[in-house]
Amino acid sequence: MTLKMYDLAGADPLLRFSPYCWRTRMALAHKGLEVETIPWRFTDKDAIAMSDQGRVPVLIDGDKVIHDSWDIACYLDEAYPDRPALFGSADAKGAALFIRRWCEGQLHPALARLIVADIVEILHDKDVEYFRSSREKALGASLEEFCAEQETNLKRLHDVLMPFRLTVKDRPFVGGDEPAYADYIVFGALQWARCSSPQNLLQADDPVTRWFADMLDLFDGLGVKAPRATAA
Amino acid sequence: MTLKMYDLAGADPLLRFSPYCWRTRMALAHKGLEVETIPWRFTDKDAIAMSDQGRVPVLIDGDKVIHDSWDIACYLDEAYPDRPALFGSADAKGAALFIRRWCEGQLHPALARLIVADIVEILHDKDVEYFRSSREKALGASLEEFCAEQETNLKRLHDVLMPFRLTVKDRPFVGGDEPAYADYIVFGALQWARCSSPQNLLQADDPVTRWFADMLDLFDGLGVKAPRATAA
Repeated sequence: MTLKMYDLAGADPLLRFSPYCWRTRMALAHKGLEVETIPWRFTDKDAIAMSDQGRVPVLIDGDKVIHDSWDIACYLDEAYPDRPALFGSADAKGAALFIRRWCEGQLHPALARLIVADIVEILHDKDVEYFRSSREKALGASLEEFCAEQETNLKRLHDVLMPFRLTVKDRPFVGGDEPAYADYIVFGALQWARCSSPQNLLQADDPVTRWFADMLDLFDGLGVKAPRATAA
Repeated sequence: MTLKMYDLAGADPLLRFSPYCWRTRMALAHKGLEVETIPWRFTDKDAIAMSDQGRVPVLIDGDKVIHDSWDIACYLDEAYPDRPALFGSADAKGAALFIRRWCEGQLHPALARLIVADIVEILHDKDVEYFRSSREKALGASLEEFCAEQETNLKRLHDVLMPFRLTVKDRPFVGGDEPAYADYIVFGALQWARCSSPQNLLQADDPVTRWFADMLDLFDGLGVKAPRATAA
């Protein structure tokens, strides 16, 4: 039976830009599981009420409802142990959890400084007011003020990526010759930026750029074929 | 045959304080390998000339000479595959490499800001001038100036540890129920501080403190029994 997944979408229902949903899309493809993705907007809280919370991804697998991208990854390895593992071992899971905490604590904020004002441009009309007011309250600034110092913010992104750069400089993927869930965590962040913003944030000679291009090509180009924001 | 390892020592030959050597000590214990550690000081370059470089740890295994703590860890898993693995899978090794890069790029510098002036107090006389002049040249400040803002530096350490804190909050070790090489990497950093300085840098209610105490008790208390700096 095909799985279903609620996936954050913009005004264009094919434009999918959540970093957490991208982790799950890649994880499902890694395991060779077909999924029907259902476009979901920030204000569609009722549509996922069966998950008892208000954020995506939400995965429906038969009578099971699983939310939270990390819990979904753990679920997929448990429910489908005969398919390629997202975590190769217990220590791989723990170290991937560290990468997740680093990603959410450092990489996401560094990217948000560059793209959050662009996100407004791709949103469905019904999400704009919710997105702007909730984010501006959390940030204590307008989205445009928050993104004002672009040169400084690009430098900060470059610095934040250092430990990841030094990792993929020495191996094709975090997972080795093949990607693993740790790769999908960081891919989700950069794909969030790529789909939400027409800016090019990575430098051509950065090992992260090589790695990201290889990630975009995986699974018959799942990432590279995804619709993305275009310059106004 | 017992392995031999050159291990950074202070004036007290039993006081061992290198973060990289502690990684290797723990890795050898993890694999159940006996090792004879040879006290080594920064200026004993001739003693390790057979490794074609000037830093420890250097491991001697029969006719093999291996240096660099990361390369030693990889060697041990390859040379002793029937003993407990330091890396449970290819993705565990990649994610541990990320933790290493984070540790060396963020955690070591944050700890250095707190302890580098204390290190001078434990050194062998023949190392003091070498250590002070090489470090002060690299830092562009006296060791005492570099460590001056203790309150700010403690706050920074607390912030830097965040992704690790959120990891060990949810599991006994990075490795899961048992430690793995990723744990030894971070342990090496905190054991460097513990052995080099009489300061207590961790807060009692920090999950990192619980994890570090458990790490100190491993292998019959290899870490907790190690001689450390005492207050003057």
